[in-house]
Amino acid sequence: MTGAADPGYAAEMDAADELASFRERFVIEQGGPLYMDGNSLGRLPKATAGGVGDFITDEWGRDLVRGWSRWIDLCAEIGDLIALRLVGAAPGEVIVSDSTSVNLYKLAASALDLKPERSRIITDAANFPTDRYVLQGLAEQRGKKLDLLEFDPIDGPTAADLAPALDDDVAIVSFSHVDYRSGAIADMMAITDAVHRVGGLVIWDLCHSAGAVPVDLNDCDVDLAVGCTYKYLNAGPGAPAFLYVRGDLVDRLVQPIWGWFGHAAQFTMERDYLPAAGIRRFLVGTPSLLSIKGVETGVALMAEAGIGRFRAKSIALTEMIVALCEAWLAPLGFSLGSPRDPARRGSHVALRHPEAWRICRALIEKQNVIPDFREPDVIRFGVAPIYTSFTETWEAMDRLRQVVEQRTFEQFPAERNRIT
Amino acid sequence: MTGAADPGYAAEMDAADELASFRERFVIEQGGPLYMDGNSLGRLPKATAGGVGDFITDEWGRDLVRGWSRWIDLCAEIGDLIALRLVGAAPGEVIVSDSTSVNLYKLAASALDLKPERSRIITDAANFPTDRYVLQGLAEQRGKKLDLLEFDPIDGPTAADLAPALDDDVAIVSFSHVDYRSGAIADMMAITDAVHRVGGLVIWDLCHSAGAVPVDLNDCDVDLAVGCTYKYLNAGPGAPAFLYVRGDLVDRLVQPIWGWFGHAAQFTMERDYLPAAGIRRFLVGTPSLLSIKGVETGVALMAEAGIGRFRAKSIALTEMIVALCEAWLAPLGFSLGSPRDPARRGSHVALRHPEAWRICRALIEKQNVIPDFREPDVIRFGVAPIYTSFTETWEAMDRLRQVVEQRTFEQFPAERNRIT
Repeated sequence: MTGAADPGYAAEMDAADELASFRERFVIEQGGPLYMDGNSLGRLPKATAGGVGDFITDEWGRDLVRGWSRWIDLCAEIGDLIALRLVGAAPGEVIVSDSTSVNLYKLAASALDLKPERSRIITDAANFPTDRYVLQGLAEQRGKKLDLLEFDPIDGPTAADLAPALDDDVAIVSFSHVDYRSGAIADMMAITDAVHRVGGLVIWDLCHSAGAVPVDLNDCDVDLAVGCTYKYLNAGPGAPAFLYVRGDLVDRLVQPIWGWFGHAAQFTMERDYLPAAGIRRFLVGTPSLLSIKGVETGVALMAEAGIGRFRAKSIALTEMIVALCEAWLAPLGFSLGSPRDPARRGSHVALRHPEAWRICRALIEKQNVIPDFREPDVIRFGVAPIYTSFTETWEAMDRLRQVVEQRTFEQFPAERNRIT
Repeated sequence: MTGAADPGYAAEMDAADELASFRERFVIEQGGPLYMDGNSLGRLPKATAGGVGDFITDEWGRDLVRGWSRWIDLCAEIGDLIALRLVGAAPGEVIVSDSTSVNLYKLAASALDLKPERSRIITDAANFPTDRYVLQGLAEQRGKKLDLLEFDPIDGPTAADLAPALDDDVAIVSFSHVDYRSGAIADMMAITDAVHRVGGLVIWDLCHSAGAVPVDLNDCDVDLAVGCTYKYLNAGPGAPAFLYVRGDLVDRLVQPIWGWFGHAAQFTMERDYLPAAGIRRFLVGTPSLLSIKGVETGVALMAEAGIGRFRAKSIALTEMIVALCEAWLAPLGFSLGSPRDPARRGSHVALRHPEAWRICRALIEKQNVIPDFREPDVIRFGVAPIYTSFTETWEAMDRLRQVVEQRTFEQFPAERNRIT
């Protein structure tokens, strides 16, 4: 076996990749960019254009309003598939709905209602902004206290570091399962257990883990979770998100946005709101079906490939990135912003450099590589095991090396003007 | 000129219809149903499949995450078009976002925050359920009082009937501009003025009026409004909704769901939530772009046709329905559930009959007509001036007459099992 820095290594790994055929199921343009940003927006499955197109033409266009007799169940059906095949939950515990932010609001608000006597909400000061903001808003609106805990910037939240902050005044603890910057995987089981021991509820954000690393919500006895579908589930830009509520909690929670899709008798137009039995009570308004058809295709493809096969490839890819970082990039001023231990690392790697912003600009505009920049100094290289090849990743790392060696990035302004 | 009940009338009206060419811009299947339910789900514009398909293939598939540099502005751009061309508002006052229900929650919650000393929320006891439920939820959560006022079932809310209920404890009054059941148009100007005189805020629901009847939010000095795009704007099943905030109020309101798309500096990942300046503060999470591309096509088509041309045709269509109801249906036990005065009627007509449910089933399954049933006894015939023809409407009324004359409906069970 060759080493990661040898030219033949990537080809050898690709030849042995049992998921390789799934790369063919995605639109990958000849001469197109090397795409290291599937953890921001997943690639387009080949089946999506047809799936959405058929829906538009055959269902909306022809069935018109009659289609709702089928469409009405779609959010719950896709939710069941996510539950069973991607996040280790049971049917009836997951539903597709709204955005991640709106879903977090609904779950956190209803969790606070379940613990009215408790005043504390805990999250990670380095958690993804929308998570912090949603919780900050709820804390201010409800007179609660938001604790933004500081953890090791690479390892993220651990049960040991969390323990001193826990007491019986904690209502909610909410973390990302995989940190959006470092890629660190939090110990879902240990943290959930620690929170339960003081009688609190946990809400996990699965945006960077669903479809990328194993998630076992039921095994970990997780109370609540949210996740997006536009990253590793390849459902399309801004595609509707999902939420999970553990079965025994479903009918004990009432979310605050009382829309007609969450009503027990949606079409009888009753005077009073009565939440539906089961997970549908977490719906609000009419779901956006064009986008939801994209979710259906993305989730079905992931379920077909089988999440169980993803982890070994994801680790092999990120191990290669780490090895190349150590061999090539460390001498150029880079440091690793992700856990060194692959067991603690999700499916992206943070490569830190003081000129990260300008290096990203140069990669995109001069080298046809799409990485992701995150403030203040992080270049994220995300790998999606279902379609990212070793060759593409090796080549992207090589171009990154060239941009820094040749100082190409110095042509670009340091000022941030970019979106995503 | 022939009378509405004469066989030649509809053809004559179609021949004179200056909007007739726009019918060709929609997918209308040969031998397909007579569609009287565009006020529930609008028909499919021919341009939509291509618009969404091109977005999927060329933008998501090829640009990948780089597309966000353009996509980020889409919700505000379409909002501006809705503002200027469809609802009488100014750029920067409307944005496309979430569902109608979620938008109503955001606006009503922030309106309550602006009037913290006031305890009353007023709506129509016959308002569309999701509106009532959202307000009911907020009232319970905030310790406010929800008043469900009863109005005339055909005429709906009037300023005169509302007046006795108004006092300086009223925070919010929220009505539908066009009633979902009777089709009555509320007097937006008089009601808004009456609420302002006691210092309250109004929230209008435009779901059954935007794209169907003239809406002049600025002229009426309306504070806040929500509306959907999947009815008369033909944006697709469950397509994202829009919200309006009068310019001088925009930066005084902070909505409760603090997501990253509403932040002043979305990508700098700041510690604290700081609402964006302007209408973008009403965004929450990442918008669902496949669905939003459907909104873009639907709205552009409406703007091209020009809302100013819709009203005369809409009135002529509903006047024909009313005339045929009086000539044909009244002797069969029908009564008109809509205002007789066309100036007070939106773009649908409620035809009431004790067997409405079974008659709707027979129309759908035996006559290839799609009406809409609403509890307890209403058959809604909605006409969308941009594509509904006089001939189609006349023929649908004729088949309705046959179903009742021939008592075809008696083959169907009285039990409700249907969705929409």
